[in-house]
Amino acid sequence: MAPKKTVGILGGGQLGRMLTHPAALLGIPLIILDEGDYTPAKQTLLAPLNEDHLDGPFKSEEHIRALAKKCDVLTVEIEHVNADVLEAVEREGLCEVHPSGKTIRLIQDKYLQHQHLHEQGIACAPFAALPANPTHDDVVAIADKLGLPLMLKARTLAYDGRGNFPLKSTEPRHVAAALEFLGDRPLYAEGWAQFVKEVAVMVVRNTKGEVRSYDAVETIHRDSILRVCFAPLRPEAGMVGVNQRARELAEKAVATLDGAGIFGVEMFLLPDGSLLLNEIAPRPHNSGHHTIEACHTSQFENHLRAILSLPLGDTSLRVPSAAMVNVLGVDDSMGPVEDIADASLAVPGATVHLYGKAASRRARKMGHITVCGPSDAEVRGAVRTLLEAQPDLDATFIDSVAAAPVAGHSHAQPLVGIIMGSDSDLPTMLPATKILDKFGVAYELTITSAHRTPDRMVQYARAAASRGLRAIIAGAGGAAHLPGMVASETSVPVIGVPVKASVLDGVDSLYSIIQMPRGIPVATVGINNSTNAALLAIRILGTSVNDLQVDTEKYSKALEEEVLDKAEVLEEMGWDKYVTDVLKK
Amino acid sequence: MAPKKTVGILGGGQLGRMLTHPAALLGIPLIILDEGDYTPAKQTLLAPLNEDHLDGPFKSEEHIRALAKKCDVLTVEIEHVNADVLEAVEREGLCEVHPSGKTIRLIQDKYLQHQHLHEQGIACAPFAALPANPTHDDVVAIADKLGLPLMLKARTLAYDGRGNFPLKSTEPRHVAAALEFLGDRPLYAEGWAQFVKEVAVMVVRNTKGEVRSYDAVETIHRDSILRVCFAPLRPEAGMVGVNQRARELAEKAVATLDGAGIFGVEMFLLPDGSLLLNEIAPRPHNSGHHTIEACHTSQFENHLRAILSLPLGDTSLRVPSAAMVNVLGVDDSMGPVEDIADASLAVPGATVHLYGKAASRRARKMGHITVCGPSDAEVRGAVRTLLEAQPDLDATFIDSVAAAPVAGHSHAQPLVGIIMGSDSDLPTMLPATKILDKFGVAYELTITSAHRTPDRMVQYARAAASRGLRAIIAGAGGAAHLPGMVASETSVPVIGVPVKASVLDGVDSLYSIIQMPRGIPVATVGINNSTNAALLAIRILGTSVNDLQVDTEKYSKALEEEVLDKAEVLEEMGWDKYVTDVLKK
Repeated sequence: MAPKKTVGILGGGQLGRMLTHPAALLGIPLIILDEGDYTPAKQTLLAPLNEDHLDGPFKSEEHIRALAKKCDVLTVEIEHVNADVLEAVEREGLCEVHPSGKTIRLIQDKYLQHQHLHEQGIACAPFAALPANPTHDDVVAIADKLGLPLMLKARTLAYDGRGNFPLKSTEPRHVAAALEFLGDRPLYAEGWAQFVKEVAVMVVRNTKGEVRSYDAVETIHRDSILRVCFAPLRPEAGMVGVNQRARELAEKAVATLDGAGIFGVEMFLLPDGSLLLNEIAPRPHNSGHHTIEACHTSQFENHLRAILSLPLGDTSLRVPSAAMVNVLGVDDSMGPVEDIADASLAVPGATVHLYGKAASRRARKMGHITVCGPSDAEVRGAVRTLLEAQPDLDATFIDSVAAAPVAGHSHAQPLVGIIMGSDSDLPTMLPATKILDKFGVAYELTITSAHRTPDRMVQYARAAASRGLRAIIAGAGGAAHLPGMVASETSVPVIGVPVKASVLDGVDSLYSIIQMPRGIPVATVGINNSTNAALLAIRILGTSVNDLQVDTEKYSKALEEEVLDKAEVLEEMGWDKYVTDVLKK
Repeated sequence: MAPKKTVGILGGGQLGRMLTHPAALLGIPLIILDEGDYTPAKQTLLAPLNEDHLDGPFKSEEHIRALAKKCDVLTVEIEHVNADVLEAVEREGLCEVHPSGKTIRLIQDKYLQHQHLHEQGIACAPFAALPANPTHDDVVAIADKLGLPLMLKARTLAYDGRGNFPLKSTEPRHVAAALEFLGDRPLYAEGWAQFVKEVAVMVVRNTKGEVRSYDAVETIHRDSILRVCFAPLRPEAGMVGVNQRARELAEKAVATLDGAGIFGVEMFLLPDGSLLLNEIAPRPHNSGHHTIEACHTSQFENHLRAILSLPLGDTSLRVPSAAMVNVLGVDDSMGPVEDIADASLAVPGATVHLYGKAASRRARKMGHITVCGPSDAEVRGAVRTLLEAQPDLDATFIDSVAAAPVAGHSHAQPLVGIIMGSDSDLPTMLPATKILDKFGVAYELTITSAHRTPDRMVQYARAAASRGLRAIIAGAGGAAHLPGMVASETSVPVIGVPVKASVLDGVDSLYSIIQMPRGIPVATVGINNSTNAALLAIRILGTSVNDLQVDTEKYSKALEEEVLDKAEVLEEMGWDKYVTDVLKK
């Protein structure tokens, strides 16, 4: 084991608290600098070291220097620290500082950060500086340049919505309201990114320059505060390669910055599938909290590994699907926070994290809940339950995050896709829906034809895996090309249902589907047998969703009992009567 | 949230330490009673409460009573406590005690524990009491009754092999050695359980009587100390329903005991597939450490929930496969322990847990490493690497736990089973093995015939799911019943390969396999196309093993490039020459 360096952390909030657990696992001594005896992070430190922590502001030169004396490595859990002193500590060689003071300084000023990224060729929203104490005319000039709406932002000390003002018109009263809200801080403006989703990627780099990123996630904000995070990101239908591109953009952006540690990179996903960088946090980030349960090595452990020159841990998801729901204070009382935590104890797959804050206040982050599950559909359902326990959220918001499914319509988080070349195949394919309904499997159903909508078919197939589909059931008749063509464009298992057309009894469809060339398999079932196609999809899902494996066993048992019952009736009734009384009815 | 009761723990070792993390997440105050200022559990307690913990022996009446005064609920992390005082605390109503003093007293004496379980109808090994200070003749009398070998055991204070002596003969020198090793403690004897595997199940019961168990695990001991644990248990081929029966036996055994909390139930799996109970621990147990990473709610959090009357958490595995490897002290130096931890940092899916013990000594539990992964094969490979880093383990032991696979032979932890009705099908099925080898997928291959070995076929199919198979490729020709019959006896997806027999061009095989009745699906591929069967199996695995999905995409890309290359050659060469120079070669 590498020698146990002592790590000093500027800031003792929940991010520091979540660093203490992996530190204890690895036996890494941590010392915190923050004001107060029992901040969240100071509560859970390895004893006896917690007697060494420092009580003072993380901006104070005196305190930072005192911390540096006790530590081998300084790091931050908040970027609003004293970057000058960090740079001095590095320069004077008092101890290592990760990430570097220079990077923290750059990130502290969002305008400079934006300018830096822009200069480095990282795609970000158009932006422009504003003079000190801007006038109405200054704002109008910016609006002419960037268009409306635009986002007025404080350059410094802005987080969780404090410091952002969306400006929708340049009417004097609107501009005045914005400038009043933002106060006398230095400001800049950003063009409005008309995003379809907000996306984040955690990136970690160790002192040796080794870089790893986590899967991209979808982040959902309300009043500029993160409320929910879904991992992995599921792009919109037809968008290909978004996750990979998001990771590449995030890694590229982090590569332009100095220093080791974990970085949270926030992005906008635009309607055309492209990505714009929003901003970077040089520390563990709320959009990576799910990594504690959902990934092999959490963002917190990887931050410690990175700054201590240890090998980076495995960033991959160890569960099929995960979500994080923030627990915000509703008012000054702890009651609602405890109620939300209480409700989550009964949600399967949920883990409660309370931060131990001494007092609640409206919109303060008091804790979070992680949900892991075998499918997006199950996780989304659990998130719905958790959101319903939050008193400040209305049904419209909850539906927008986790809509309840509607019978006879496609599920928003399908595991199985049912497609067919023509609406005339629908009666043949409908039994598949009945089986999937019976087993409670989320699916979608649509029409796409190999010959009449080839583009749509290709788009559907190419996006299937990243959209979370784990099986595609494709029905087709005659020169039945749909299943094989879809299989050529996806890595998801494709189940072909030969539909009996008007001639040849379906044998044409069967041969067209099953006799695929070596290299591209189609799992073919019997002619018109969409029931078996659905049961096969369920068996495939059952390889990762244990309940479905159990349900398949129960289904087979029920089939057996049904036949045994019939045998009993037949034997009792006699076969002649059985033919007339039972079969002919 | 239920009112936050303060929990007092008798014992401050690693089990107590692992209780502190979920306690912090849920904001539950814990106070420890143990000797020393900074025992493993006292290092990681929620401050400022760690100033309240007690320094004293957990057998001392004075100290237990002092702890009871500070707490609402007392619990234990070790069973060798003062049960009399716990019973008095309960009786006098000083605070709640979970599990009850009565249960702890019963479990402390392994003979009484055994007698109790036997009386309650729980299957356990035959056993017999020994008089105090037994003579050679007493031991011979017991050996006549129970047979040889037998296990001589101390009734009390026995753990991690201290207090167990396997007696192989009644020669006077052997008996004398046993009695000397065991000292003057009260003894009893157990008949030898000729087990094929050791099995453990964690069971949790809350104060309301709600009971949940975790998946059964395989435990591997060396010199009576747990070294490795695999979750879930994979029974031997041909054994059906072992996991379920193990959970039922464990739940039934725990139901005979008073009190709330988590219980570790150890069992023997016998060659006929039956189970014998070995012993019960009334506390978190080493065979449940993997639950921290591998299950939705860990044994530690569930213990706290159970004793605090909170709803029990989800015990199910959230990963497909997991293992736990203990890190034992090698000698008095910390060096080897740190080296093992160091080595594990580079193992994907591994999480290190160091216990913060002040000093190492031979065979002392200094920490453990959990490995989670998408398959048994990957986890077993990682465990092999971790075991190789342990200086006290030899190659024979390591091979017995995690053998390296041998080309051309079945993998010990297969994900895919390839079966065929006859060795004459082997040439047709061999291309499937080449594909699985190419993708690095663990598989097994054997012969089983629907018509000639129906019993073997049924046994194979019924055990497939619990053995960890996620797809079965079955090849058959003519009246090709194997795939469909196997599918009738398993919930695992079955891929049918119609083998072309001597007549009818394989169409007989194809129809026999594909035209299954509604209810039992077989994923059929083209005639003789075992390549596609393997590729389909890989797509099925890819729904839960992300790397295989990526590899499938790469494979398709390579196919595309191969055809593009051929097109280029053909266009350059001209088609006449291509036929003679390329195709005819």
